[in-house]
Amino acid sequence: MAIKKIAVLTSGGDAPGMNACIRAVCLAAISVGADVIGYKYGYNGLLKQEYIPLDQYVVRNLLQRGGTILHSARCEKFKHPEQIELAAKHLEDINVDGLVVIGGDGSFRGAKKLQAVWDKPVIGVPGTIDNDITGTDYTVGYHTAIQTAVESLDKVRDTAEAFERIFVVDVMGREAGYIALNSAISAGADHVLLPETFTSAAEELVKILDKLDKRRKNRANKSHIIVITENLWPGGLNVLADSLQAESGVDVRILTLGHVQRGGSPVWQDRLLATKLGTYAVELIQQNEKGMMSAISHRLPAAIPLNDDTLTRKELNTYSMKIRDEITLLG
Amino acid sequence: MAIKKIAVLTSGGDAPGMNACIRAVCLAAISVGADVIGYKYGYNGLLKQEYIPLDQYVVRNLLQRGGTILHSARCEKFKHPEQIELAAKHLEDINVDGLVVIGGDGSFRGAKKLQAVWDKPVIGVPGTIDNDITGTDYTVGYHTAIQTAVESLDKVRDTAEAFERIFVVDVMGREAGYIALNSAISAGADHVLLPETFTSAAEELVKILDKLDKRRKNRANKSHIIVITENLWPGGLNVLADSLQAESGVDVRILTLGHVQRGGSPVWQDRLLATKLGTYAVELIQQNEKGMMSAISHRLPAAIPLNDDTLTRKELNTYSMKIRDEITLLG
Amino acid sequence: MAIKKIAVLTSGGDAPGMNACIRAVCLAAISVGADVIGYKYGYNGLLKQEYIPLDQYVVRNLLQRGGTILHSARCEKFKHPEQIELAAKHLEDINVDGLVVIGGDGSFRGAKKLQAVWDKPVIGVPGTIDNDITGTDYTVGYHTAIQTAVESLDKVRDTAEAFERIFVVDVMGREAGYIALNSAISAGADHVLLPETFTSAAEELVKILDKLDKRRKNRANKSHIIVITENLWPGGLNVLADSLQAESGVDVRILTLGHVQRGGSPVWQDRLLATKLGTYAVELIQQNEKGMMSAISHRLPAAIPLNDDTLTRKELNTYSMKIRDEITLLG
Amino acid sequence: MAIKKIAVLTSGGDAPGMNACIRAVCLAAISVGADVIGYKYGYNGLLKQEYIPLDQYVVRNLLQRGGTILHSARCEKFKHPEQIELAAKHLEDINVDGLVVIGGDGSFRGAKKLQAVWDKPVIGVPGTIDNDITGTDYTVGYHTAIQTAVESLDKVRDTAEAFERIFVVDVMGREAGYIALNSAISAGADHVLLPETFTSAAEELVKILDKLDKRRKNRANKSHIIVITENLWPGGLNVLADSLQAESGVDVRILTLGHVQRGGSPVWQDRLLATKLGTYAVELIQQNEKGMMSAISHRLPAAIPLNDDTLTRKELNTYSMKIRDEITLLG
Repeated sequence: MAIKKIAVLTSGGDAPGMNACIRAVCLAAISVGADVIGYKYGYNGLLKQEYIPLDQYVVRNLLQRGGTILHSARCEKFKHPEQIELAAKHLEDINVDGLVVIGGDGSFRGAKKLQAVWDKPVIGVPGTIDNDITGTDYTVGYHTAIQTAVESLDKVRDTAEAFERIFVVDVMGREAGYIALNSAISAGADHVLLPETFTSAAEELVKILDKLDKRRKNRANKSHIIVITENLWPGGLNVLADSLQAESGVDVRILTLGHVQRGGSPVWQDRLLATKLGTYAVELIQQNEKGMMSAISHRLPAAIPLNDDTLTRKELNTYSMKIRDEITLLG
Repeated sequence: MAIKKIAVLTSGGDAPGMNACIRAVCLAAISVGADVIGYKYGYNGLLKQEYIPLDQYVVRNLLQRGGTILHSARCEKFKHPEQIELAAKHLEDINVDGLVVIGGDGSFRGAKKLQAVWDKPVIGVPGTIDNDITGTDYTVGYHTAIQTAVESLDKVRDTAEAFERIFVVDVMGREAGYIALNSAISAGADHVLLPETFTSAAEELVKILDKLDKRRKNRANKSHIIVITENLWPGGLNVLADSLQAESGVDVRILTLGHVQRGGSPVWQDRLLATKLGTYAVELIQQNEKGMMSAISHRLPAAIPLNDDTLTRKELNTYSMKIRDEITLLG
Repeated sequence: MAIKKIAVLTSGGDAPGMNACIRAVCLAAISVGADVIGYKYGYNGLLKQEYIPLDQYVVRNLLQRGGTILHSARCEKFKHPEQIELAAKHLEDINVDGLVVIGGDGSFRGAKKLQAVWDKPVIGVPGTIDNDITGTDYTVGYHTAIQTAVESLDKVRDTAEAFERIFVVDVMGREAGYIALNSAISAGADHVLLPETFTSAAEELVKILDKLDKRRKNRANKSHIIVITENLWPGGLNVLADSLQAESGVDVRILTLGHVQRGGSPVWQDRLLATKLGTYAVELIQQNEKGMMSAISHRLPAAIPLNDDTLTRKELNTYSMKIRDEITLLG
Repeated sequence: MAIKKIAVLTSGGDAPGMNACIRAVCLAAISVGADVIGYKYGYNGLLKQEYIPLDQYVVRNLLQRGGTILHSARCEKFKHPEQIELAAKHLEDINVDGLVVIGGDGSFRGAKKLQAVWDKPVIGVPGTIDNDITGTDYTVGYHTAIQTAVESLDKVRDTAEAFERIFVVDVMGREAGYIALNSAISAGADHVLLPETFTSAAEELVKILDKLDKRRKNRANKSHIIVITENLWPGGLNVLADSLQAESGVDVRILTLGHVQRGGSPVWQDRLLATKLGTYAVELIQQNEKGMMSAISHRLPAAIPLNDDTLTRKELNTYSMKIRDEITLLG
């Protein structure tokens, strides 16, 4: 299909590689002869018809830059049917032939609703550090967020060992444990607490103490690192720290890595993934595919329908879980 | 099967994550009640019965360290049948129940021959920055090598743009273009030369000049970055640089990234991959699987026979090639 | 003076480069024919006569490692005269000819007291991320801590700009503003709050709002970064964030960088400084200098008495303050 | 003096922090009510009256970016008196009140000549990775270049130790040994070859072999790292490598770090230094100071005349030399 104009926006929590994805959409669109516009502030820009033209000069050197030049935002309004109709009208008014939505599951729900009322392709590209989208092996931003977490954990280990302390480190992930699980294994943490397996504070505390106890028998150094997904411990990290300190008799410190995990120049996997998925999203628009996610599956792009299955939270990698449960005991 | 003793060695070109893999083999072995020894200097240590005991104290904090504490080496001798028989005898003499060989295709050829004359499991773990092993999605060290290359390319871009020069950057990969292809895309290079597609100096020069010419029309900055796999240009990089400078009239500089790509603390994917594959190698020994590679396939460990198929060079990712050919034209 | 045995310890808050300093003391001592021991856990090891021998094998590759292999600790007991006498006795018992104390002002107060009751040299080496020691241009660990803070601030900027938020970032420094001031300038932050100039929450809030207001007029992006020294805002960061959000109407987030600033492989300046000051400390022992700090002054080592002047907090750099007050207004 | 317009240019070899310096000049000029223009391609832009306006929007986020948005270049023409007269005329034609030249000693020679024929201030800011300018403690770019070199040396060590090889690593510095000396000490290299002390290939080879021999007796690992300033060994690095391999019997590899040392986001010291010196350069223009360098001396800006003393190459730090000669022997 001859496409003349493509629009792109970034929505929801920002992720490293969103700019690389904007660049890829733009270059791929230009290479098939289409113009490109970028809506600002996610769906808000679409509702306000607020956009900027994108070309090869604007996206130059965007591949390596963190953040998103289109800005991102949540958009509560976009849940109302009349607003979604308005968005479709805005796209029609300026003759957009296809829209690329870079974001997470919330953004995809919006994309699905918009597709229901607009007859040109709406394509989602999974851009979130949480890696919680079913149907794609990875999401853009995930690789960088874990690398940032692991580099911080490496630094924490230095000071933990110097003082023989227990550190409880809070990483992002919302309700998904991907960042916590893989950063904990990759940093050689002693324990990791995941939303997918969390039972109760009382039970989890017993497990932690049990693991620390076993580990202390197996090595000289008394320092420990425990990784936990954000917002998980009832009452907050201070409650966990106090309990741990009281029970173990060891000095406990807490650290919340926070928004640094969303920033920084993307690592190469997020740059490559963003470039592939952005390019493939434009291909899908050309093929007039509707309501699809431009996903990565077994190292190749794949078109996955944006339906209820996709919008479910992805399960944790089974072998990472096995390693977490069995092998890290002696490290 | 009850295993009592596992041996491990690192062989061939070193790769970031080899230490993480040694640690994983060691911890997994301990967790099933086995002792662990590490042969030094690859197969040389096996031929000289030169090894050290490994335990949780020795491997502590090895996860994040570059290099290999067991040292690596090529071993010409190991191509002779009588030497391979000697190796098998040495393993028997000290009651080894299984051997893990961390290395590349050359090392796997040795492993296959050893398996033919020894009746306990020999398991290969793909450890090479070149990512050229068929049968596994990725190899240990590959992720870090590209990240190092991309960070260097990012720096080269600064100075290339300041002086509006052409830079020709030589990356590793031996006869495989994986590092060149993916680092070029991830760094937004203007062109990449790969062993898999190289025809002749004359033809490739025409292609380069053609691409640079098109790009110059599409942007203000006259700087360009060309990535090339090591040992590829007939006569060496200086020959290419001289031709380019003569034809383009632009100042050309060359840079050989070299052995920095083999060092450094592994990025998280190499740590995680090494941990999974090392752990799974011990599982395979327990299951009495022989002549297998502990590989990663679609995010899960898999046992792949070390046969002629596996020992062929892996083909480049088709979608990366597509992006290289079509999309990067305007960047 | 012929010295036969030198002891070294690390005390107080840990800092990147402490290991490099231990190595330098060790190598310098060996080069003059002396043996070296390292007391563990700061002054605690001295009181318990708990130490390990150090030689060139132990300190190999210590230059680039964060943390301290001797561990660090606070030591309340070391304020009691009888404990200090005990420490002197322990040094005599094993014929130590000189003691090097790597730490901050608290550790130096202990060193001064010990020197008063022992007739061999006690030499302080300034090792603290806070850079708050009068008499030395820089302290070991300071350079790395700021680099870590600046890299985090660079990442925060990405996400701050994407969402056009205000970020309040808490950095270390105890009662000294060096880390906050220089990381804020180096990261292009919009405002910085320092213990040296803090007046009251009410007054400081007015200043912040005034500055943000001026800046908003001068640029499109509405994001801002405010850096604050730890433990400075009355009631904590949440109180500041709530006030800022209420007054500015902009979304405010807080981030506490925390202990990552104490870890990591030291940047080159901390490695070089640690090597120089550790080496010079051994020279001072050879020269039978007592109660001195091995300091850096105008790029060369200098012997500075450990007296009340030295143990005062260093004033902030006047030109950094000028830049903070005048120039950053438009950035 | 009321200044209305300030011009700035970057000249000679590029250095990380040049952009930060352009930003500081621009913000400082705006803060005193002046307009700012930036000449492109060093003195070439001045000769061709080719410049761009600079304001707070253009310099936003320039602090952390490598390279120079004004581009740099050598300018042979600028050695001719009539060209220098032309430059002065161009500055007059557009009513420039002061010119800031960011560059190295060659650029300063041009600045001095221009000052001789123009009656408004020409101020030099030392911007070069070589740190070879007498009269300033440090130059902008120097800190980042060494950090890049040290990080590469850390990686080389991993692979050197894995294979027990000798690595000869070539670093930048033109005729000055600052980068080589301080990166060698900071990376724990075994030997360093400096232009300031180089005698002859024959003599230096003896010294290297002697040092390697002593070191081998003192430690288990047979790997060594030798750092050498660019263009120093007669006949090139291959000649040195061949001699070393023949004499030592150990496998020798060479690595030229090259232009990566000129790129990358500047480390905080270069950002801070650039900000201070750029700001102070504008102050000097306001004070109608002529023919000065905006230098850093003992942590504060200082005005140093651009005369023959300043334009001599700076001597190496004496204590770094002492450490190089005496202490590193056992490491």
